[in-house]
Amino acid sequence: MKNAIYPGTFDPITNGHVDIIRRAVKLFDNIIVAISAHHGKGPLFSIKEREAMAREALKGIKGVSVEPFDGLLIEFAKSRKCNFIIKGLRAVSDFESELQQALTNRELDKGIETVFMMTSQEHIFLSSSLIREIASYNGPLNKFVPKNVEKMLRERYRKS
Amino acid sequence: MKNAIYPGTFDPITNGHVDIIRRAVKLFDNIIVAISAHHGKGPLFSIKEREAMAREALKGIKGVSVEPFDGLLIEFAKSRKCNFIIKGLRAVSDFESELQQALTNRELDKGIETVFMMTSQEHIFLSSSLIREIASYNGPLNKFVPKNVEKMLRERYRKS
Amino acid sequence: MKNAIYPGTFDPITNGHVDIIRRAVKLFDNIIVAISAHHGKGPLFSIKEREAMAREALKGIKGVSVEPFDGLLIEFAKSRKCNFIIKGLRAVSDFESELQQALTNRELDKGIETVFMMTSQEHIFLSSSLIREIASYNGPLNKFVPKNVEKMLRERYRKS
Amino acid sequence: MKNAIYPGTFDPITNGHVDIIRRAVKLFDNIIVAISAHHGKGPLFSIKEREAMAREALKGIKGVSVEPFDGLLIEFAKSRKCNFIIKGLRAVSDFESELQQALTNRELDKGIETVFMMTSQEHIFLSSSLIREIASYNGPLNKFVPKNVEKMLRERYRKS
Amino acid sequence: MKNAIYPGTFDPITNGHVDIIRRAVKLFDNIIVAISAHHGKGPLFSIKEREAMAREALKGIKGVSVEPFDGLLIEFAKSRKCNFIIKGLRAVSDFESELQQALTNRELDKGIETVFMMTSQEHIFLSSSLIREIASYNGPLNKFVPKNVEKMLRERYRKS
Amino acid sequence: MKNAIYPGTFDPITNGHVDIIRRAVKLFDNIIVAISAHHGKGPLFSIKEREAMAREALKGIKGVSVEPFDGLLIEFAKSRKCNFIIKGLRAVSDFESELQQALTNRELDKGIETVFMMTSQEHIFLSSSLIREIASYNGPLNKFVPKNVEKMLRERYRKS
Repeated sequence: MKNAIYPGTFDPITNGHVDIIRRAVKLFDNIIVAISAHHGKGPLFSIKEREAMAREALKGIKGVSVEPFDGLLIEFAKSRKCNFIIKGLRAVSDFESELQQALTNRELDKGIETVFMMTSQEHIFLSSSLIREIASYNGPLNKFVPKNVEKMLRERYRKS
Repeated sequence: MKNAIYPGTFDPITNGHVDIIRRAVKLFDNIIVAISAHHGKGPLFSIKEREAMAREALKGIKGVSVEPFDGLLIEFAKSRKCNFIIKGLRAVSDFESELQQALTNRELDKGIETVFMMTSQEHIFLSSSLIREIASYNGPLNKFVPKNVEKMLRERYRKS
Repeated sequence: MKNAIYPGTFDPITNGHVDIIRRAVKLFDNIIVAISAHHGKGPLFSIKEREAMAREALKGIKGVSVEPFDGLLIEFAKSRKCNFIIKGLRAVSDFESELQQALTNRELDKGIETVFMMTSQEHIFLSSSLIREIASYNGPLNKFVPKNVEKMLRERYRKS
Repeated sequence: MKNAIYPGTFDPITNGHVDIIRRAVKLFDNIIVAISAHHGKGPLFSIKEREAMAREALKGIKGVSVEPFDGLLIEFAKSRKCNFIIKGLRAVSDFESELQQALTNRELDKGIETVFMMTSQEHIFLSSSLIREIASYNGPLNKFVPKNVEKMLRERYRKS
Repeated sequence: MKNAIYPGTFDPITNGHVDIIRRAVKLFDNIIVAISAHHGKGPLFSIKEREAMAREALKGIKGVSVEPFDGLLIEFAKSRKCNFIIKGLRAVSDFESELQQALTNRELDKGIETVFMMTSQEHIFLSSSLIREIASYNGPLNKFVPKNVEKMLRERYRKS
Repeated sequence: MKNAIYPGTFDPITNGHVDIIRRAVKLFDNIIVAISAHHGKGPLFSIKEREAMAREALKGIKGVSVEPFDGLLIEFAKSRKCNFIIKGLRAVSDFESELQQALTNRELDKGIETVFMMTSQEHIFLSSSLIREIASYNGPLNKFVPKNVEKMLRERYRKS
C-alpha cells in the first residue's frame, strides 16, 4: 500500500490544492490531507473550519481523507503509516525552502520520501494568502476556490 | 489619454520611487501615486503622513497626483479611469510575487495592463524597509530619500 | 509621439510575442518589431524568413512594422527615433539578465527607457527554442504559434 | 500498474541519478531509464555507451530497465504505456526550466503526470557536466559516479 | 591586524555558524561574533542567553570573542576597529537580500568590506528558525546544534 | 602567509575584476590572478593576450601576480601554496553554480577555502561577454574596461 500525507495550512483550501490531490490519487492508494494547527501567525479560519472546508471540497474523491495534526510532520506521517509526503510545486513557491524542508524531513526519517507534483498552469500562481486578500476586498473568487470555500470567505469578511 | 496608477505603501517614499515616477511621466499622460492604507503589519507613518510626504517629494513633476486608497487595486484603478498599473523592478524585488500579482490583477480585469519600469542603477537595491532600519539607528539618509522625508524620519525616531 | 522598439531573434515569432505586441499597441503610437540578425549560434530561419513570418503574423495590427537590424540595439533605436524598448517578461525568462541588458542600454543612452510587459498566463512558459524542439519531433504546434509559422516549421523539419 | 519514465542524457549516469532511481522504485512498478539520443551539443559518450554504462550501474535494482529514445518524450512514454515522468530536483537545477518542460508535456498529453523527486543531500550539487570537467583534469571521481562509469571516464580522457 | 565582525541574531547559534567561524579564523586575526539585540519579532532567547550559548559553543577557538550589539552594524564595526564583515552563504539564504545589505553597508562606510564564506555541505540548508521549529516538537537536534544549545532548547520548550 | 588564487577566463579583464582585486589585496598577502586556458567555447583573446592585458591593467597593485593555468584549479592552487580561492559575486552571477563549484572544490581538497567578495555597485551587472558584445558593435567601453583593454578590443573588432 502506498500511503501519502499532503500537509498544509489550507487557510483555505484552493482549486490549486484540489487539483494536486486529483493528480495524486492516480499515484497513491491513500492520501491524508493533513491540516496543520499552525500556531504561528493566526490563520483566518480555525482548524475545525479548515478541516470542514477541505472535507466538503474533496468529498467524492476516492482514497482521500482529511485530518488535523499538531506536531512534527514526520511523527504524524509515521503514526499514520505513510511513507510519502506530497508537496505541490508552484511558480511562486519558495523552491529553496521546500528543498530545505524536504532534506530536513529526510534527516529526521530516511524512510519517508517527499514527492513533488505540479498544479495545472491556470493555478500555478494561486496561493491562499492571495485569495484571502481578494476576499477581504470582496473581489471575485469563483475561479480560485471551491463553491463552499467561497461562501465561507464571504461570510467571514462580511462579519469583520 | 493614457492614465496609470503607481501603487504602493510608500512608507516612506524613496528616491527610487521618485526616479520611477520621473521616468513614467514620459510614457503616461496622468499618473496617480496610489498610497495603500495597508492595514496589515502597521506602517511607520500614518496614511495621512505618507500622502503628505509623497506630495511634497513629487511637487513640480507634471501630470502626477497623490491619492490614498483602501480596497482592491483594480477597483480603484477603474474608478479613476486608469488602464495601466506601473510597477518598479528592483534587483531585490520578489520578481515572482510581482508576476503573481500582475496575473491576478489581469484575471480580475483584462482591460488593465501592468507595465514594469526600472529604477536607476544606484537605487536598484533600495527599499523602504532598509531605509527605516538605517533611520532607526540614526544612520545617513540623504542619498536614499528626499529632503522632506529625511526630516520626517529623523523626527519619528527621535520621539520613539 | 511615443515610439518603441520590440527587439528579439523571433526564430520563430510565437503566440507569446504576438500577445505582447497586442498589449503594447495600447501604450505606444508606433512599434517596430526589430529582428536581430543574430550571428551567434545559427538561427533555424534566415533573417528574411523570420521577417516574413513576423510580418504575416502581425498584419492587421495597427501601428506595428517589422524591420531587421544588425548592430547595437541602442543605435538602431536612435536611428528610428524610438525612446522606448519593450521587453516581454516570462516566468522562465532570465530576469537578472534582462535587468543587466536594460541597465547597460541605459548606460549607453540615458534617454531610452526599457518597459517590461507581461504575456498572458497561457503563454508564460512559451519560448522559441521549446517550439523548435517540439516541431523537430513533429509534435503539435497550433496552441503555440500563428498558422503561417506552423506551416513554415513543418516545412523546415520535413526537409531536414 | 504504475509505470514511469526517467528521462535524461546520462552522459554519464552519476550517483545522483542512481540515488533517484533507488527512491523511485519504492513508488513505481516499472521504471524505464530513457536515454535521450541528444543530437544537440555532442555528448561525450555515444548513446550505446551511455546505455551500457547505465545498465551496468543499475543492475540488481528490480523493476528498472534502460532504453534509448529519440523523438518527443511524450510519444515515447505513451508507446511504453507509462503515465508518469520522473524528474530529479537538485539545488542547482534550473527549476523554472523544469517547470516549463513539465507544463509543456502536460499540454501535449494531459494523461501523463510529472513527478519530482529529490536526491540525497550529498548529491544535491552533482551534475554530469561537472563530472566530465573533473575527469578531463584527471581529478578524483569515486564519490560521484559508479565504479564502471569511473573506469569509462578514465579511458575516454586518456585517449583524448 | 585583520579584524572581522560576524553579525547575526544567533537565536540560537547552530553548527552551521560554528563551522563558518572555524573557517574564518584561518583568514582573520580576530573575530567578534556580534549578537544583534534584534528588537523586531521577539527572539526565542534573550540577548544574554544567546550570548552565553555562543560563548560556550565557541570556547576553545582562538581569536574569537562574543559581544552583544544594538545599533547600526557599521558603527559597531568601526568602534571595534574591524574592517571586515563576515557573512555565511547558504543554499537557502536570501542571496539578493545579502547583496543589498552588503551594498548598503558599503554605502555607509567604504572602508569596510563584506566577505562571504560557505558552510560545509551538510549544514548548507540549516537555519535557526528550522531548528526552533524542530525543537518545538521535541524532534532530534544533535546533528544541528552544539550540545549546550540542545540542552537550552529542550529546557525552553519544556517550560512553554 | 595568506595566499589566494583569483581564477577566471578574463576574456577580457574588466573594471569589475580590477575592483575585486583592489579589495582583495587588503585581505591577502599574495594574490595570483589565474587565467584559465579555457579550451571550451573559443575565447576572443588568446591566453597570451589575456595574460598581457591583465598584467598591464593590474600593474602598480602590490602583492598581485598574473599566471596562466590549465588543469584542475585545486591542483594549481596547491602547487602555488594558496589555500584560498577568491570569487566575485555579482547580481547577475549564477549564484547556485558558484556554490556548486565551491562545494566541489572543497570535496577535492578540504584545506582550500573559497571566499566570495563583492564588486562595487556600478560594476555589479558587468560581464566580459556583455563587453565583447558592446565592443563588437563599436559601442562605448571606457566605463567598463581599463584603457589598455579598450584599445585591444577596438583592434580586435576592427580586424574582424
